[in-house]
Amino acid sequence: MEISNTLKLYKEKIELRLRSFLDEKIAEAEKISNSSKEIMEFIKGFNLRGGKRIRPILIIMAYKSLGGKNDDAIIDIAVSAELMQSFLLIHDDIIDDDDLRRGGPTIHRIYAEKYKDYNDPKKFGESMAIIAGDLLASLGNEIISESDFNEKKKLKLLQKFNKVVKLTGYGEIIDILSGLRTDMTEENISKMHRLKTAVYTIEGPLHMGAIAAGASDEQLKILSEYAIPLGQAFQIKDDILGMFGSEVKLGKPADSDIKEGKKTLLIIKAIENADKEQMEFIKNALGNKNITEKELIKLREIIKKTGSLDYSQHLAEKRVKKAKNTIKNFGLNEGGKEFFLGLPDYIIKRDY
Amino acid sequence: MEISNTLKLYKEKIELRLRSFLDEKIAEAEKISNSSKEIMEFIKGFNLRGGKRIRPILIIMAYKSLGGKNDDAIIDIAVSAELMQSFLLIHDDIIDDDDLRRGGPTIHRIYAEKYKDYNDPKKFGESMAIIAGDLLASLGNEIISESDFNEKKKLKLLQKFNKVVKLTGYGEIIDILSGLRTDMTEENISKMHRLKTAVYTIEGPLHMGAIAAGASDEQLKILSEYAIPLGQAFQIKDDILGMFGSEVKLGKPADSDIKEGKKTLLIIKAIENADKEQMEFIKNALGNKNITEKELIKLREIIKKTGSLDYSQHLAEKRVKKAKNTIKNFGLNEGGKEFFLGLPDYIIKRDY
Repeated sequence: MEISNTLKLYKEKIELRLRSFLDEKIAEAEKISNSSKEIMEFIKGFNLRGGKRIRPILIIMAYKSLGGKNDDAIIDIAVSAELMQSFLLIHDDIIDDDDLRRGGPTIHRIYAEKYKDYNDPKKFGESMAIIAGDLLASLGNEIISESDFNEKKKLKLLQKFNKVVKLTGYGEIIDILSGLRTDMTEENISKMHRLKTAVYTIEGPLHMGAIAAGASDEQLKILSEYAIPLGQAFQIKDDILGMFGSEVKLGKPADSDIKEGKKTLLIIKAIENADKEQMEFIKNALGNKNITEKELIKLREIIKKTGSLDYSQHLAEKRVKKAKNTIKNFGLNEGGKEFFLGLPDYIIKRDY
Repeated sequence: MEISNTLKLYKEKIELRLRSFLDEKIAEAEKISNSSKEIMEFIKGFNLRGGKRIRPILIIMAYKSLGGKNDDAIIDIAVSAELMQSFLLIHDDIIDDDDLRRGGPTIHRIYAEKYKDYNDPKKFGESMAIIAGDLLASLGNEIISESDFNEKKKLKLLQKFNKVVKLTGYGEIIDILSGLRTDMTEENISKMHRLKTAVYTIEGPLHMGAIAAGASDEQLKILSEYAIPLGQAFQIKDDILGMFGSEVKLGKPADSDIKEGKKTLLIIKAIENADKEQMEFIKNALGNKNITEKELIKLREIIKKTGSLDYSQHLAEKRVKKAKNTIKNFGLNEGGKEFFLGLPDYIIKRDY
C-alpha cells in the first residue's frame, strides 16, 4: 500500500477512537461539575482539530509489522500517544506564548477569550492550560492501563510512556535554554533533537508498538538504531519548515522559532559561515518579536547563501539513509518492511 | 503508639527513600545534560525541604492496618504520593503566583532568581516549573511501576494514581474559578473540598495502601466513607489556618487566600451573616493584593463576629465524628484502629 494511503487509513481509525474515548471522559466529567465538562470539551476540540497522527500510526505499524493481531487494543495504545502529544503541546504553547496551534487557538487562548471580562484573562488562561495538560497526561496513562493487553505488557507500556514524558521534558529544557545560551553547538542541538524529537516522535512510538507485539530487547535496540537518526532528520526538516514553510500548511506562524530566539541548526551553521554584516543581521533578528516580513526574507537569503540550508538538508538525508540501512535486514513482515523503508522519504519530503 | 510518634517514625523512612530515589534520578539525569541534572537537583531540594508527609504516611498505615507485610515495597508507593504532591504544588504555585513554599522559594522563583540576568526571568521560571511538575508526574508513575509488588497490583496502583491526578485537576479548576465567580455556594465549596482535598489527601492515599494490601472493593468503599468527611474537615482546618495561622509554621504567607480572592467557607458564611458595612469590607478585602495587616485583623474579626469561624469549626468537628464512627466497626488490626481513630483529632488540632 502507498504510504500516504496507510497513513490515511489509520488516521481515521485513530480519530474515531480518540473521539469516542474523549466523549466518554466528557460524560464522566459532566457528573462532576460544569467546569470539568468544559475543560474536557476544550481538550476534545483541541485533539480532534487535526495533526498528522504520526506517532499513533507508528505505534500501529510497529505492532503489526512484528506480528501483533489485537487490532482494537493497539488502537488504544496509539491514542495514548496522541493524548501525550496534546499534553506536551498544550504546555509547550504556554511556554512559547503561542496563540495558534493546528490552525486554531491554543488552549490558554481559548480560556483567555472565553473569560476575557475577568481580571487578568491571560494568566487565567495559562492556569487552565497547565491543568488541561496535566489532565491529558493522566488520560494517556488511563487508556493504556485499561487496554485489552495482559498486565505485564500494560505495565511495560506504562513504563515506556512515562519514560518518554521524562526524556521529552529533558529535551524541552535544553530547547528553552537554547534561546538564552550564546554557546549552542551542533552537538547540543543534536542531543536536543535526540531527546525532544527522536525519542518522543519516533523511537517511543515504535517501542510502544513493539512492546505490545511482545518484541525482544534486541528488536527494540534495532528499532532505536532506525528511530534515532530518522527522528533527528525529522526535526531538521521541521526546523527547515519552521523557517521556509507556509503558515497555512503548518497551522502556526512560520516565524515563531525566530521570534523565540531558538538556535536551530540552520541558525548555528549560518552564523558559523556568515560574514560580519550577515552575522550582525542574524543576531539582531534572533528573538526579535517585531521582525518584519522583509527582514525574514533577508534572513532566509542569508541561511541559503551561507550554505546552511544545504548543510541541514544533506545532514537530514544522510540520517535518513542510515535509518533505511538499519531496517533492511530487520525481521519485519513484508507490509512492515515496505512501510518502514518508505517512511523516511515521506518524512523528508513532507511540506507541513 | 502515640500518633505523633507514628508520624515521626514513618516521616523519616519516607524521606530516606525519597532522597535515595531522587539521587538515583540525578545520577541518571547527569548522563543526559547539565540542565537535566540541574532541574532534578532543584526537584530534590524542593521535595526534601519539609512537608508533613501526611499522604505517604496514610498509604503506609492503610497497608499495614490491612495486613500488608512488604515494608520496602510500600515505601515506594508512599514516595509516589509525595512525588505527586510536589508535582501538583509546583504547578499550583505557578497558578497562584506564590513565591514561598515549605519555607523556601517556589521552583519558578528558584529559576527566575538563578537566571535573573536573562530576558524575562519570571516567564522563564514559570516555563521551567511547568516542566518540573511534568517530570514529577512521570517519576511518580515510574516508582510505582518499578516497585516490588506483583503486576496486577502495580497496575491497579497506577490506575488509582492517575485517577487521583485527574480528580484533583477537576477540583483545582473549581478552585481557580471560585476566585472569579460571585455565586459560590456552600455546596460548590463542599464539592471542591471533596475533589481537591478529600480524594487527593485522604481517600487516594488510603486506597493506594489498601490496594497494595489486596483490599476488596467493599473495604475500599468503607475507607471512602471515612476518608471523604475527614478530608473535607482537613480542608476546612486548612482554610482556618490560612486565615488565622502563623506564617512561620505554615511556611507560606497567611494572607495568600485573601489576596487570591478565594471564596472559602469562612468567607461565604461571613458574607451570609454580615451587615452592610461588614459586607462592603469583605468584598473590598477579597482579591486585594495590597491588603494591610490592619485590614487583615479587621477581616478576621468580622469572620469571628458573624459566627463564620464557629460554623466552620463545628462543621469540621461534625465530619470528624462521622469519620470516626465509620472506622469503629471496620476490620483493622489493633494498631491500625488506634491510628485511624486518632488521626481525625490530630488533623483538627494541628496548627500548621
